[in-house]
Amino acid sequence: MTTKSLTRRELLTGTGKLVVGTAVVAGVSAGMNIFSNAEGSVPQQLPWPYEKLEPEEVGKIAYDGWYKAFCSYGVASGILTSLQKKIGEPYTQLPVEGLRLGEGGLVGWGTLCGSLLGATVAVGFIAPYDVGKQIMNEMLQWYSDTELPIYKPSNPKATVAVQTTSNSPLCHLSVGKWTKAASKSLGSPERKDRCARVTADVAMKTVMLLNDWKDGKFRSDRKLPSALYGITAQHNCNECHTHEIPEAIKQ
Amino acid sequence: MTTKSLTRRELLTGTGKLVVGTAVVAGVSAGMNIFSNAEGSVPQQLPWPYEKLEPEEVGKIAYDGWYKAFCSYGVASGILTSLQKKIGEPYTQLPVEGLRLGEGGLVGWGTLCGSLLGATVAVGFIAPYDVGKQIMNEMLQWYSDTELPIYKPSNPKATVAVQTTSNSPLCHLSVGKWTKAASKSLGSPERKDRCARVTADVAMKTVMLLNDWKDGKFRSDRKLPSALYGITAQHNCNECHTHEIPEAIKQ
Repeated sequence: MTTKSLTRRELLTGTGKLVVGTAVVAGVSAGMNIFSNAEGSVPQQLPWPYEKLEPEEVGKIAYDGWYKAFCSYGVASGILTSLQKKIGEPYTQLPVEGLRLGEGGLVGWGTLCGSLLGATVAVGFIAPYDVGKQIMNEMLQWYSDTELPIYKPSNPKATVAVQTTSNSPLCHLSVGKWTKAASKSLGSPERKDRCARVTADVAMKTVMLLNDWKDGKFRSDRKLPSALYGITAQHNCNECHTHEIPEAIKQ
Repeated sequence: MTTKSLTRRELLTGTGKLVVGTAVVAGVSAGMNIFSNAEGSVPQQLPWPYEKLEPEEVGKIAYDGWYKAFCSYGVASGILTSLQKKIGEPYTQLPVEGLRLGEGGLVGWGTLCGSLLGATVAVGFIAPYDVGKQIMNEMLQWYSDTELPIYKPSNPKATVAVQTTSNSPLCHLSVGKWTKAASKSLGSPERKDRCARVTADVAMKTVMLLNDWKDGKFRSDRKLPSALYGITAQHNCNECHTHEIPEAIKQ
């Protein structure tokens, strides 16, 4: 069975009730033969090896990483530099700072929160495709539903007294709701530290899910939004469509 | 000067009128010493070497790539597997299929168009940070403003008669406006081919900008949205804020 024989909807919903542990990895990975390799040295086949990481340690690297190069780099460094140290190759072949352009929802455009972009790339190398897809589906839902930030740095660079729920994985909404609730500007030390803490939260949550998967305990029966609505979408249509929610064209 | 000494706004706006060619690369790259390397083998320092690519060839790989693993992988494969063939290492160390989770605006959530996520990761490895930031700023503006798709495959898998302008880099808006204008569902062969063509368009445009930069001809004085609005944002606030646009809290 090749991916080409599946429809997009089948691909998006095909995982259904997903119960996956490390035992499944080899099978999923072995199925990825649709990708041609170029000549020259061959990259280590996906998924890359994973060993459980300590969420608190990852959170600290991610928090500090924000102050080096913001959210996308922060999460990527929390996860991937930890694996560079713990496992070595192939992680050491990846210059993590190349992933910083996700900052500010993509160079300040407020789209996908950069911390989630960093997590996406890390998970894409670490987990088999079907598992990674469900992990990121869980991550975006958790990010949308959770009062953030949770992380408490041992040496905070500013006081962050307010938590907010974004109801969205979009940077613009996540940052906008927090700055409004906290009455702080984008350039304030408090907003910066808020985003550094969210970066730690996303890195830690991602690692918790990866650890669960490594232990054979990761479970997800959450459908992907595109399978529910007939369009790629968030779950809360009326947050933007305040007056009428367009009907998706029937399949 | 280290990155830590700059505010976010300074970082985001610091490039100002950016006129950069390959001569600048070494200097920018040499400044990236804030990133600690883990033990073990050391990845090739960023930016990775780049040689000009043929946009049409890249577009064909990206179009075909969509039918393997959708938009994010499509663009990444168009650019990065071309460089695996042309340059070899370090590109051959990167398993490009790890970048597929950007599909459908992140596993079907409709956030950042996955083709732009694929472009972001590729540009992050290829271009120095300040150049990559401006290239992606140009890419998101171009994606928002342009009637897409433009690309005409030599062997199209479906007829795509309608072009639309998304006014946004978000998958939900890009796909939603097209499906509405074309009266085609998400699962239709036409919508799939539309997205495969957009994937080709994004890969080709990215390569055109990278080629311009390689030739010393890339110019951009476009400000990043976060510097204009006091919040990370798209440019068209009233597309979602139909009744009142909240005031950004003053810096």
